[in-house]
Amino acid sequence: MRIGVLTGGGDCPGLNAVIRAVTKSLIRQCGAEVVGIEDGFSGLMDANPRTRVLDWRSVSGIAHRGGTILGTSNKANPLRSPADTERTLANARALALEGLVVIGGDGTMSIAHGLADLGLRSVGVPKTIDNDIVGCERSFGFDTAVATATDGLMRIETTAMSHSRVMIVETMGRHAGWIALEAGLAAAADIVLLPEIDYTVEAVARVCREREAHQRYTVICIGEGAKARGADLTVQHRVEGSFDPVRLGGVAHVLREQLQPLLKSEVRATVLGHVQRGGQPTPFDRVLATRYGHHAAQLVAAGRFGEMVTLQGGDLRSVPMARVANQQRTIALDDPLLVTAREIGVSLGEH
Amino acid sequence: MRIGVLTGGGDCPGLNAVIRAVTKSLIRQCGAEVVGIEDGFSGLMDANPRTRVLDWRSVSGIAHRGGTILGTSNKANPLRSPADTERTLANARALALEGLVVIGGDGTMSIAHGLADLGLRSVGVPKTIDNDIVGCERSFGFDTAVATATDGLMRIETTAMSHSRVMIVETMGRHAGWIALEAGLAAAADIVLLPEIDYTVEAVARVCREREAHQRYTVICIGEGAKARGADLTVQHRVEGSFDPVRLGGVAHVLREQLQPLLKSEVRATVLGHVQRGGQPTPFDRVLATRYGHHAAQLVAAGRFGEMVTLQGGDLRSVPMARVANQQRTIALDDPLLVTAREIGVSLGEH
Amino acid sequence: MRIGVLTGGGDCPGLNAVIRAVTKSLIRQCGAEVVGIEDGFSGLMDANPRTRVLDWRSVSGIAHRGGTILGTSNKANPLRSPADTERTLANARALALEGLVVIGGDGTMSIAHGLADLGLRSVGVPKTIDNDIVGCERSFGFDTAVATATDGLMRIETTAMSHSRVMIVETMGRHAGWIALEAGLAAAADIVLLPEIDYTVEAVARVCREREAHQRYTVICIGEGAKARGADLTVQHRVEGSFDPVRLGGVAHVLREQLQPLLKSEVRATVLGHVQRGGQPTPFDRVLATRYGHHAAQLVAAGRFGEMVTLQGGDLRSVPMARVANQQRTIALDDPLLVTAREIGVSLGEH
Amino acid sequence: MRIGVLTGGGDCPGLNAVIRAVTKSLIRQCGAEVVGIEDGFSGLMDANPRTRVLDWRSVSGIAHRGGTILGTSNKANPLRSPADTERTLANARALALEGLVVIGGDGTMSIAHGLADLGLRSVGVPKTIDNDIVGCERSFGFDTAVATATDGLMRIETTAMSHSRVMIVETMGRHAGWIALEAGLAAAADIVLLPEIDYTVEAVARVCREREAHQRYTVICIGEGAKARGADLTVQHRVEGSFDPVRLGGVAHVLREQLQPLLKSEVRATVLGHVQRGGQPTPFDRVLATRYGHHAAQLVAAGRFGEMVTLQGGDLRSVPMARVANQQRTIALDDPLLVTAREIGVSLGEH
Repeated sequence: MRIGVLTGGGDCPGLNAVIRAVTKSLIRQCGAEVVGIEDGFSGLMDANPRTRVLDWRSVSGIAHRGGTILGTSNKANPLRSPADTERTLANARALALEGLVVIGGDGTMSIAHGLADLGLRSVGVPKTIDNDIVGCERSFGFDTAVATATDGLMRIETTAMSHSRVMIVETMGRHAGWIALEAGLAAAADIVLLPEIDYTVEAVARVCREREAHQRYTVICIGEGAKARGADLTVQHRVEGSFDPVRLGGVAHVLREQLQPLLKSEVRATVLGHVQRGGQPTPFDRVLATRYGHHAAQLVAAGRFGEMVTLQGGDLRSVPMARVANQQRTIALDDPLLVTAREIGVSLGEH
Repeated sequence: MRIGVLTGGGDCPGLNAVIRAVTKSLIRQCGAEVVGIEDGFSGLMDANPRTRVLDWRSVSGIAHRGGTILGTSNKANPLRSPADTERTLANARALALEGLVVIGGDGTMSIAHGLADLGLRSVGVPKTIDNDIVGCERSFGFDTAVATATDGLMRIETTAMSHSRVMIVETMGRHAGWIALEAGLAAAADIVLLPEIDYTVEAVARVCREREAHQRYTVICIGEGAKARGADLTVQHRVEGSFDPVRLGGVAHVLREQLQPLLKSEVRATVLGHVQRGGQPTPFDRVLATRYGHHAAQLVAAGRFGEMVTLQGGDLRSVPMARVANQQRTIALDDPLLVTAREIGVSLGEH
Repeated sequence: MRIGVLTGGGDCPGLNAVIRAVTKSLIRQCGAEVVGIEDGFSGLMDANPRTRVLDWRSVSGIAHRGGTILGTSNKANPLRSPADTERTLANARALALEGLVVIGGDGTMSIAHGLADLGLRSVGVPKTIDNDIVGCERSFGFDTAVATATDGLMRIETTAMSHSRVMIVETMGRHAGWIALEAGLAAAADIVLLPEIDYTVEAVARVCREREAHQRYTVICIGEGAKARGADLTVQHRVEGSFDPVRLGGVAHVLREQLQPLLKSEVRATVLGHVQRGGQPTPFDRVLATRYGHHAAQLVAAGRFGEMVTLQGGDLRSVPMARVANQQRTIALDDPLLVTAREIGVSLGEH
Repeated sequence: MRIGVLTGGGDCPGLNAVIRAVTKSLIRQCGAEVVGIEDGFSGLMDANPRTRVLDWRSVSGIAHRGGTILGTSNKANPLRSPADTERTLANARALALEGLVVIGGDGTMSIAHGLADLGLRSVGVPKTIDNDIVGCERSFGFDTAVATATDGLMRIETTAMSHSRVMIVETMGRHAGWIALEAGLAAAADIVLLPEIDYTVEAVARVCREREAHQRYTVICIGEGAKARGADLTVQHRVEGSFDPVRLGGVAHVLREQLQPLLKSEVRATVLGHVQRGGQPTPFDRVLATRYGHHAAQLVAAGRFGEMVTLQGGDLRSVPMARVANQQRTIALDDPLLVTAREIGVSLGEH
């Protein structure tokens, strides 16, 4: 039995722990040969496929390391053209691969699903630091991202406190606010703004003003996909008229422009950026990633291709890959964590 | 509405985050007055009860701090004598407490349960860094303990590697091996020995010898409650005859005595000790503790005294306090995490 | 004896450890009364001065905390107008202050120097995370900033490696490149660009191209004051023509624009930003700040007002405040650390 | 030019950063071939010497890793017997080594000095986490050990505070108390006991009792070489009569036995142990180790064998190896840091 393993999409802490667990489990349980494919699907599309044997030794000592020893690619897509597809399938046949374990996000899962119809079967392992995969309550990498964002927020808080400032910290999370919500709670941010709840500039300013009087400073945690609601659109548009939010470096800077005119305190914005994706996984993420990798190997051993590993109710399970494509798991308005945040006094920027 | 809050039993990261969430939720949801009771039940048993008002301000900025701002006590027991009981109940009446939120372990829950029969009602929040509460899949403080133990294991690994040694690291966990298992997995320990599986000295030695030949070093993670199985009892007893394990500083030293005669490499033992209980909670534990605290307040608001908050299937629920007393949640032999460890090649010291 | 203590200028890890050591030393050595002045000189300029007594208890348990318990101010200047000056001096007299301990940067020292001429004497403690005070070889806060920047660089490196990218990371350091140089060395960045050495875009690109062939990725650490040298000015100006570097978020983005056209690999830029100023001081900085604070108290005790504490040759000494004003200690071109970097193969962007 | 590099003695954070800087500097400056010798002198004494080429690639990416990629040995001594010596020298000749860079402690330097008389010349790099090399004001690895010990102390403090206990934490430092002193200061320990100052049990107890009344808890940091002074010898001897301090696991336990009878609070002891020697070096230590390694290469390039790198007055210099053998740099009683500790109110256990 020969199984290929690849990682696709953006860097995510825990990838190496998954690779290690998949490989060791497949070797030990199935006596399989495991082939590492380099740089995501790109390594399988080339005229000369880039692969390496993954044996016991080569995956030892990697679980705590950030990144992926196999490399990854954001753009490689074997379904882009018939020629690409054919070369990919031919390479897989030449390598005698009976299947793939594909570790990646939405895009990678779509491709794997497409290739399955053409005979190259996969088991999927979801990868997202944003924790927004449908049907999966906690993805590996997320805990590390939250820890990094929390550390950033708490560093910023000392400055906010010392200078009696309003400090805005932007976390990752384009579609879903999980990082902002959990890091905001862990760092005891005063205001947490999420892509799921359009904020009211006036509501945000009101909280800042109340705190000006007593605590003197405010920390705002904003997910990168958050935006002001209807009533504020004019304000935001005017802002965007003169300050391109992309060039400004994100929504934190947009909010700064909206907020400063309404407040006495100085308002500053920081974008945490790429640091949230990288680095060593937390112990939690190493264990979780190990569980995902081991479960993927079990699915392979059971011939259950076409499935993707998920975490549900605290247990590892699997769902059909097809079901998760092109959707995001956003925070429901009655999500218990959101309710908790609101009821312990965190402002969500609601009027 | 006046509600008392107390923390009992050993230090545990996240206690302050629970106190904060309970207090803020009770104030915001119920307009309650919250009274902090100092040093566990001890503060309520004294002739002059030691309490302080917990208002919004006094619980702000504490979520990330280790320990408990209220103090705790291991020994205070209002049920010890009728006089103690009466004084405790009289104090609670004098303070006009309509109920307690009691954050503690087994012992604390028993006491709370006993007091309920006498008219002082409680809601319980389970506290254990060992993660061994029945019916509760993850307790706050555990993630921090695992992170600290993992850090210790990885520091020790660099020494093991540099010196080609066998290094034994003892983690907390008298009855249940959760810390040893998760930290062992996170740190990629070669051998993990648990209270739940009596180890065979020869099996442990065999793994070390195989590694001597190739990787040259071995890291063993042993939970403090682990012991050698039947066949080895004579060895262990002989060891215990001359070296009292308490004086030796724990099972790591016992295992060292058992193992050294069988190996060429030098064997060293380290007991991580108290550091695992203390310090700032991880961001994960701050969020989890916040959820526990908020849920406890919801139970109070709903008048559901006599219940203890738990985490089941990823959600916060509650169980009758009575049900959890005097039991530990140990690792089942078919626990998925245990199976994962075994199947990715971690030795559990089994023959 | 009554002595005032204030912190001025930007947040810097270690301020609280200085405040604690100054206060405890003055109380213990001189039996002094110590008065904390809030928000830098601002607290002393107001009609109602904002001060609080600093006794033993109030400065206990603060050494490891980030920020300043006294608050700080970037802008308050008692020398701005005769009225401001008079009010400040009158307040100092009313508070019966015999002198100040002033913890701050350049600006703060200038003010303190100016007030001394008017009869309000000070001892200075230099504060700069940039480590650029003349005559002072290591300022507190710098080690923490380097540690934070190093952590950021290493997180980014895992992404660079996984994606075979060129990643540019901008650290603080407008005039002096100490943070970039030390963090770059600690994180083993491939290229380190400093304000002291104008870089050549082509030289930077050449290193990236050589690494594309072998190691496949490159990490560039750039201090915020770095810029391309003469030959590149046209390029940079053109870039600046269309992309305002301030809006772009710093020189990292300028370099990205310069570099991307010359390389096959994707180039990404990250600005670490405010996180470098805040947070808990490292143990090193707590000890160093404690030494600074204690030495300042000794100067007060000896009546040596007008002096500023420095570190020279590993020992604490003092220099006249006047001597340090309005200068920065930049990295000399023959600085041993710079030579070390070059000779172990770190590219400094020199042709 | 062919130069050997070896690491001897105990694990120490920063060894890999030294190896990397030595190797890269020698390759770049001298075009040297660098030969890594495995497991300290042991690799050079064997009939089949164990060595590997150290080229640019093989020392890249190791600066932040704990331990030593070359392995080390505590016991190997080529001077033990004439046969061992002859084999070592013959191996060095066969390998065409023109000299060695020897990274190690006292013992390693003695051996290197002895071999120099027999024609095998060395440059020394001092290695000690205890920071006790004569003529060297700060050795690499020390900062990391202090950081680890500080972290341990602060975790223990939360438990001390929560339980109103006296907690004793034992750090490394058999002959010199540097780790205990700096970690004690960084963690704001209440009492710091050093090998250099014999403590009085009664003085220690008095501080604990004073704190019992107000702060309610006490943290004591004790270096492993500390002991009670004359007047207490009887007490200690009695203790040692019944409790062997080695079996007790160190002086922390001895002090606990001495102290508990004198106090109301519960007293607990923790030995931090091996964790202080291992793990990733701090950024500070990576930079310092890089400087040491680079300077060693410069000494080799200048033919200055027989010298050992040191740090003096903040600069790298060198001293004759002979001068440092068999001595320790202990803390002088008028050391400024010791004076600082005393004058900010840290008890040193003096009567």
